[in-house]
Amino acid sequence: MSTQHADLPDVSGLSIGILGGTGDQGKGLARRFALAGHEVIIGSRSAERAQQAADSLGEGATARGAENAAVAREADVVIVAVPWDGHKATLESLRDELAGKIVIDCVNPLGFDKQGAYALPVEEGSAAQQAAAVLPDSTVVAAFHHVSAVVLLDPEIDQVDLDVLVLGDDREATNTVQALAARVKGMRGVYGGRLRNAHQIEALTANLISINRRYKAHAGLRVTDV
Amino acid sequence: MSTQHADLPDVSGLSIGILGGTGDQGKGLARRFALAGHEVIIGSRSAERAQQAADSLGEGATARGAENAAVAREADVVIVAVPWDGHKATLESLRDELAGKIVIDCVNPLGFDKQGAYALPVEEGSAAQQAAAVLPDSTVVAAFHHVSAVVLLDPEIDQVDLDVLVLGDDREATNTVQALAARVKGMRGVYGGRLRNAHQIEALTANLISINRRYKAHAGLRVTDV
Repeated sequence: MSTQHADLPDVSGLSIGILGGTGDQGKGLARRFALAGHEVIIGSRSAERAQQAADSLGEGATARGAENAAVAREADVVIVAVPWDGHKATLESLRDELAGKIVIDCVNPLGFDKQGAYALPVEEGSAAQQAAAVLPDSTVVAAFHHVSAVVLLDPEIDQVDLDVLVLGDDREATNTVQALAARVKGMRGVYGGRLRNAHQIEALTANLISINRRYKAHAGLRVTDV
Repeated sequence: MSTQHADLPDVSGLSIGILGGTGDQGKGLARRFALAGHEVIIGSRSAERAQQAADSLGEGATARGAENAAVAREADVVIVAVPWDGHKATLESLRDELAGKIVIDCVNPLGFDKQGAYALPVEEGSAAQQAAAVLPDSTVVAAFHHVSAVVLLDPEIDQVDLDVLVLGDDREATNTVQALAARVKGMRGVYGGRLRNAHQIEALTANLISINRRYKAHAGLRVTDV
């Protein structure tokens, strides 16, 4: 197992753009990657709100803000952390800027009612597969679905205790994203299958929300025997 | 968190029936529950094959075999470990015998092709929801999807290193199944949400199969912060 992880590429020089980076999930990831020493660019429809988010990441976490299109153009790797209802339209509008890049989709299509969260049906199968359909010239990888924004943003939490499941059909791209996950203290990137099996990874976030509610926790997953 | 687990009922006296207990998953669970001191009855369409399976569990694991209908009638709690393609018909035929009981569904509706495993669509949403639809007088709980049969059957493995996600809409029943999971050395039962969120837990087995293939492992899941 250790061999598999040792084979991952050096990604320390990659700049990371985060579309929809003003939401808690995006900000949390921005904060952890900035702390890990990456150049981080937070994207939003408004450059001003993006800059505000970038300025709010706390001590030691330096990032800048820009409009989503500039972020998509400038960053080496782009994380999609937009709300599900803007997912397709946002990606369609950035197709040219995202061409040739690794695009990491962490969006969870969920609905909420009195009984909690549940998975929404997605025509393409999953948010990640929708991204792949909309972005034929990008390499889409699904990852970072289960990281608690609360944990990522908590200045008291030094180690993020979970594995990030990384799904995709391109080995080089999934290796890169596994390596990126490992840049965050405590996190590990574990290959989790092909993109066609992304639906259940996204949907599993509904279960984690149930777990959090029952146990008053910020639950994550670890994969055993790997 | 410890409080939550301490509140679980004493289930040491419950007898456990396993429908489709001649398959590896069923035999593996039978073996571990027998080792934990439970009365275990393995079910099959053929009482003879059931008895053969019961006799094959290895040192210290005592069980008996019977036809599925007898198992469903006699056992306090019944685990459904039949192949997906016989799932609905088997349960329909046992509706009366299973009335009033906790029925634990661990069936994963999966397809396989050259690229590995993938989730099959299920009209009712999931195998567990299909069981609930077919067994209106039983209390269906979904659990034990991710335990590797190889690990369960390996006489060299003393501790099973994973959490069992337990899903259901009846608190007393999910508590009982969490407690049953904890009877197996190393295992823990963690509440994982309502039955409507069972699909992704079943489907996640496809990802674990991908992980096993990539890392040459028998992967399981642990829930952090719980």
